[in-house]
Amino acid sequence: MKRPSKAPSVTVSDVAREAKVSKATAARVLGGYGTVSEMVRAAVLEAARALDYRPNELARSMTTGRSGSIGVVVGDIENPFFSLAVRGISDVARLSGINVILANSGEDVEAEKNAIRVLLAKQVDGLIVTPAQSSEIAHLKEIACPLALLDRALPELAVDTVTVDDRNAALRATRILTEAGHRRIAYVTAAVLSGDFRGAASRINTSTVRERILGFIEGCREADIEGAERNIHFGSGRSESAHALMQRLLKSAERPTAILASDSVVALELFKAIRECGLRIPQDISLITFHDADWTSVTTPPITVIDQPVYALGKSVAELLIRRLKGDDRPPERIVLPTTIIERMSVGPSEA
Amino acid sequence: MKRPSKAPSVTVSDVAREAKVSKATAARVLGGYGTVSEMVRAAVLEAARALDYRPNELARSMTTGRSGSIGVVVGDIENPFFSLAVRGISDVARLSGINVILANSGEDVEAEKNAIRVLLAKQVDGLIVTPAQSSEIAHLKEIACPLALLDRALPELAVDTVTVDDRNAALRATRILTEAGHRRIAYVTAAVLSGDFRGAASRINTSTVRERILGFIEGCREADIEGAERNIHFGSGRSESAHALMQRLLKSAERPTAILASDSVVALELFKAIRECGLRIPQDISLITFHDADWTSVTTPPITVIDQPVYALGKSVAELLIRRLKGDDRPPERIVLPTTIIERMSVGPSEA
Repeated sequence: MKRPSKAPSVTVSDVAREAKVSKATAARVLGGYGTVSEMVRAAVLEAARALDYRPNELARSMTTGRSGSIGVVVGDIENPFFSLAVRGISDVARLSGINVILANSGEDVEAEKNAIRVLLAKQVDGLIVTPAQSSEIAHLKEIACPLALLDRALPELAVDTVTVDDRNAALRATRILTEAGHRRIAYVTAAVLSGDFRGAASRINTSTVRERILGFIEGCREADIEGAERNIHFGSGRSESAHALMQRLLKSAERPTAILASDSVVALELFKAIRECGLRIPQDISLITFHDADWTSVTTPPITVIDQPVYALGKSVAELLIRRLKGDDRPPERIVLPTTIIERMSVGPSEA
Repeated sequence: MKRPSKAPSVTVSDVAREAKVSKATAARVLGGYGTVSEMVRAAVLEAARALDYRPNELARSMTTGRSGSIGVVVGDIENPFFSLAVRGISDVARLSGINVILANSGEDVEAEKNAIRVLLAKQVDGLIVTPAQSSEIAHLKEIACPLALLDRALPELAVDTVTVDDRNAALRATRILTEAGHRRIAYVTAAVLSGDFRGAASRINTSTVRERILGFIEGCREADIEGAERNIHFGSGRSESAHALMQRLLKSAERPTAILASDSVVALELFKAIRECGLRIPQDISLITFHDADWTSVTTPPITVIDQPVYALGKSVAELLIRRLKGDDRPPERIVLPTTIIERMSVGPSEA
């Protein structure tokens, strides 16, 4: 049987012309957004009826039911760590015919709550979140759809979680520095501390940050370095204040001879600050960072890094979530992926 | 009047216990996802009624109407160009209380169509898109909500558009190379050409790629360099094949003495390939790239770049879109933002 040939479709422009309004006005009425007067609205709808206007194919595909989509809320989409993890998630989702929509929390828990609210309102089937804080998680506990955590564990939240062995990684990196003779070692992180640290790692609200700091402190203790807690520097992101903080650290009398950076964004800022201060890597200062970011292998010298399986992290968490979406009922899994250290040229012997 | 005190809320776990099923099963029934038998479903719903279970706050905030959200479809979220533009968009949207949800096309037009379909189904109020192709845009023409284009113009699509002066930027960068005496200059882009180039820039489907190539060719012609078209190399992204392509280019007898790279992802791959081939920048080969990516200032030598106002690009396009959402009816705007060239140390005189 021959299907009826498709009539040339009536467009929004046609309706606008018929109703003697602008295309934008017609689109607002037909799309149901913005505000127009009731008279204009009536004229446009009348014209649409007269011309037998039908919403286009994309509009027809709008459904209010299940979407086959998952929402992902990451801490900072500009951090290559997260964009690479998102690629891992997306590649797995695509194979299952599931769409990924993304929102950015900017590491702010209020923004995170808002992003989750929006994605749930958009009726995603499941959520992957990198929680900005482990102290404020009521909004995560309330989520009724399947939830999985990426990169950061929450002991109180029994959901599928994929992290890396942050503590052990920091411990091993710190050992590399202590074995090279360093005693004044700083740990520098972009994380902002709410309240006073006073050496109490339990006060740190993000599991990755806490675990890495615990590994760092353990590494210092093994080498009989006292007061490692005092050499932990928070708030060292991309901001002006962070830059000032780094300059102060590098120019102080008690300047560290080695630094462990919590991520590649922090490390790049440190690299620039070290150069600006006229210091050389590794002769004056040694540097190791978490995340094998692109740039770490092209600097002079190239940087020793803790290589996290970031793509696999995204891939694994998506696989766990999709298994839930398909009805899997097993108890939540907590997967911890191993890291490796890529030794390049940024660690030298301590001069001290 | 005193409001009734809130009863301790009944959780999914409570319902699960009452219905004698797992929490995951209860969540599936109450959340309306996954599959369970009719008997289990009935038991869970009965338990929920008995306990007076009410969906949590987040679930209550789910609405099907207007959301105050815009959808953004970018070409490659792993390219720092796009993640920075997204920050510009997000910062503007936040000020208007509008949420941003993101999808990635991976520069594939089918994925782009799908992402747009999903975002429209999620009832975003407006869309910002970086169209993957300018030859296949029927799906963009069909969009009924306000649409704005980021970074890439489509002559046939009269919507708000913000781009940079790609052609002029490429022309000026090429002039820097020709004025340094270079004659064998290559243009290297990640863009994949559908069909044969044969020097016809009109066959190039992405406006930024086309405009930059036209600027490059114009710069070569000004310096009486013939056959610049033959020195344009497509398909040089992050893949294995791209790496092989770069190696071939750098090892050929007709090796270019200078390269203009279309973006910082391509340029980083080139930088690595140049080093692997034992060539020095700028003594053996000069390099300029589009986008002042983080890493370009920390290499030895630092790289001369075309600095695009990427954050402003995102900011401007979001401002235009939000104006539409508020009912602005003016004709579409096409804003072209200027670029500047930051001269660093990667351009030397030609040895030839």
